Amino acid sequence: MSLLCVGSVALDSIETPFGKRDRILGGSATHFSIAAAFFTPINLVAVVGQDFPQEHLDFLKSLKIDLKGLEVAEGETFRWEGRYGFDLNNAETLATYLNVFADFQPKVPEAWQQPEHLFLANIHPDLQRDVLNGVSRPKFVALDTMNFWIEGALDSLKQTIELVDMIVINEAECRQLAKEASLLKAARTIQSWGPKTVVAKLGEYGALLFHGEQIFSAPGFPLEQVMDPTGAGDSFAGGMMGYLAQLDGAPQFEDLKQAVILGSVMASFNVEDFSCDRMRRLNAAEIKQRYQDFQDLAHFQPAAESLFA
Amino acid sequence: MSLLCVGSVALDSIETPFGKRDRILGGSATHFSIAAAFFTPINLVAVVGQDFPQEHLDFLKSLKIDLKGLEVAEGETFRWEGRYGFDLNNAETLATYLNVFADFQPKVPEAWQQPEHLFLANIHPDLQRDVLNGVSRPKFVALDTMNFWIEGALDSLKQTIELVDMIVINEAECRQLAKEASLLKAARTIQSWGPKTVVAKLGEYGALLFHGEQIFSAPGFPLEQVMDPTGAGDSFAGGMMGYLAQLDGAPQFEDLKQAVILGSVMASFNVEDFSCDRMRRLNAAEIKQRYQDFQDLAHFQPAAESLFA
Repeated sequence: MSLLCVGSVALDSIETPFGKRDRILGGSATHFSIAAAFFTPINLVAVVGQDFPQEHLDFLKSLKIDLKGLEVAEGETFRWEGRYGFDLNNAETLATYLNVFADFQPKVPEAWQQPEHLFLANIHPDLQRDVLNGVSRPKFVALDTMNFWIEGALDSLKQTIELVDMIVINEAECRQLAKEASLLKAARTIQSWGPKTVVAKLGEYGALLFHGEQIFSAPGFPLEQVMDPTGAGDSFAGGMMGYLAQLDGAPQFEDLKQAVILGSVMASFNVEDFSCDRMRRLNAAEIKQRYQDFQDLAHFQPAAESLFA
Repeated sequence: MSLLCVGSVALDSIETPFGKRDRILGGSATHFSIAAAFFTPINLVAVVGQDFPQEHLDFLKSLKIDLKGLEVAEGETFRWEGRYGFDLNNAETLATYLNVFADFQPKVPEAWQQPEHLFLANIHPDLQRDVLNGVSRPKFVALDTMNFWIEGALDSLKQTIELVDMIVINEAECRQLAKEASLLKAARTIQSWGPKTVVAKLGEYGALLFHGEQIFSAPGFPLEQVMDPTGAGDSFAGGMMGYLAQLDGAPQFEDLKQAVILGSVMASFNVEDFSCDRMRRLNAAEIKQRYQDFQDLAHFQPAAESLFA
């Protein structure tokens, strides 16, 4: 099993009602890989600048994340500055500095060019397609995207979507992409373009999985306090793909359901602290317990037959 | 078993992206009673004007709804005019004519003054408390309310909430009532005032049940098209209370979980057509099938033990 991920590694400056942190470890591929590495080894393709702290490299290496594909380019690391109000569902972007990310051309090391599983994190759809076309066809390919590409590179994005097995996307972006007010209709539209599987992320309300004709709903995990929602969606995708990469062959609906729950588990931990700080002290027993908590949260008994007499 | 309901019966004029209807059957107690009557007989206390169409009275009587407590007052029936955009979660009120509802003083017929179950639909909390104090203590009392009373009659509302076993409330109003951004903290706060059970309605995202320390999440049912969301929350409460009224003694957590699912089932049908038109042609087999659909939607298997090795 091998899981290749292409995306961004960043230094984030973040303010939430519960605190403020400067130049902390962030980026879509970072959050994805850290969550996925609890389940499977990761091959990471990304770029950082020369200012990227050695301690972050050491931390990533200490997990099952291979950094052979992490380019260190001349210049500064991609930076994002954002703020959240008490409605933690929506980030306000204060500043974005692309820096070395502006000219990022993903280079997949030769040893990694037969990946079994591939995750294309949120980058330009042209680059996502370049990566996909540059490797032998994986068993399973998934991508994430965002409103920026839906608005600015829709044709390219659709071409890329045609090629993947699964799209993991925010609910609002799902509706926007398909131009449908109904989330169910939006998912059906996107499925008609190619992907058999659409996962709509609902923020604190959980996630909906559409696989062929089948549908599964994962609950949101009620938390007393969300410290920093940054990276929740990437941790979610990481938990999903990390689990799926353990399996042989194409995932069945039941596998995808469990993957969505494990994604939800990882996201629910990630938001409990800034950056990926909660993940640094997370262990397998806690993951197992929270999976059980999700089951307790969502399951119920059949109603009495007499009810329908 | 007996279920007493006090609330509004109205004539609604409604516009959604899918059509427009004038002076159709509506009101909180109406939608509640119609849903509940699939499970248990209802004693309805409300008021209408002399203009209230005989066909609506005949329809309600044809269900298990006793109208002995439905006062026909001089004047016109309570009317609400509303409009929904493509975001069907939020209604825009175009006009409200209280008419005979302005001076409504609920009168519970003597034969109904020992109710086993009581639902206080969304009316002034003073009136809710009057009704509760005017009957012998039921086994189980629930109430609904809205932002209008939270903003305009908070002290009275809190006094009423102290007396009930369960509050069924919109998520946003739950946060507003408790002055807490976290829904979990908001529910805990309201529980500390008295009710052991808080049910937060999440619209298309389902519902969260808080019972003592325990939590249950019911999914929203993905629908291709919501024709008219009016009355969804009341049908939800009706399905819940109709089911609970069948049980002996105080409901246990597992009973409440099944009640929340049945509430979700009834709400999911109610929004499929204007007014209560879907309910007119609904049968027990469809209810049973959708309960099963909810189970299929929400249930998943334990993850492989090897995952946590």
